[in-house]
Amino acid sequence: MKVMGIDPGIAITGYGVLEKEGNNVKLLNYGSITTDTSMETSERLLIIYNSLTDVIKNFKPDRIAIEELFFNKNAKTVMQVGQARGVSILAAANQGIQVWEYTPLQVKQSIVGYGRASKQQVQEMVKVLLDLKETPKPDDVADALAIALCHLNSYVMEKFLFER
Amino acid sequence: MKVMGIDPGIAITGYGVLEKEGNNVKLLNYGSITTDTSMETSERLLIIYNSLTDVIKNFKPDRIAIEELFFNKNAKTVMQVGQARGVSILAAANQGIQVWEYTPLQVKQSIVGYGRASKQQVQEMVKVLLDLKETPKPDDVADALAIALCHLNSYVMEKFLFER
Repeated sequence: MKVMGIDPGIAITGYGVLEKEGNNVKLLNYGSITTDTSMETSERLLIIYNSLTDVIKNFKPDRIAIEELFFNKNAKTVMQVGQARGVSILAAANQGIQVWEYTPLQVKQSIVGYGRASKQQVQEMVKVLLDLKETPKPDDVADALAIALCHLNSYVMEKFLFER
Repeated sequence: MKVMGIDPGIAITGYGVLEKEGNNVKLLNYGSITTDTSMETSERLLIIYNSLTDVIKNFKPDRIAIEELFFNKNAKTVMQVGQARGVSILAAANQGIQVWEYTPLQVKQSIVGYGRASKQQVQEMVKVLLDLKETPKPDDVADALAIALCHLNSYVMEKFLFER
């Protein structure tokens, strides 16, 4: 069972691919797609879309998890994140992969155990859970891995509830 | 010179393709792409992207004009419009067509002559300018045609300023 997590953004989109075999979770790939403010929006969206499509084709995740919308930013930021999010979801859909969405609250609850956990706590837990020497940088990569871990947790729960 | 206007939305995306030859503007094609709330976001974005790609391939516009972000809605709506907008811009970019963006204010100023024009005034002008018997429905189609007309107007100005 392979899960790809995506933390979409117009300037930086983080992603990570995890594989769960039994009780073991392996980090297959992670990275960030950065685009420059000097570029046209269309060029930036194309880079995000093409880069994610490449990762999806290379690592063939079974499922993709993406962060749900958040409300604590201004409308321009939300619009830009929305555009990046739209092409990220499209990259998944165009490869026939289903997309799961989680709110930051769900991610925090799943990874740290409570919804008010700090960003730092989430990132520290990502490092520990994936047995990494350092927290992956930039933050967007750690966030993408947290979303993928969150989905693996709820997948385990789903199996426990429906398949026993 | 062919211009395609797009008014993106997750439930309804309006589009229209205009061709300018000399002083004559011809309406080549228009329509709306509707998706149902019962569908997954990824399915809805895929339908919008694929439908726009079909229109672009069939009518080969030289340029695409799209409405700029607006601030008078809640964050969830802005996020959804952003996602639809993202895949619309991507559809253009993937066919190598440059995208121009106009604010509602610019569209109103260009079509009606002043920025506080009502939606009805804009739609009435679209009908008159394109010599149509009725205003195209739904509103999203009329809005898409208004954006295409706005771009044709600024294209004429651009030629006047730089090519005389």
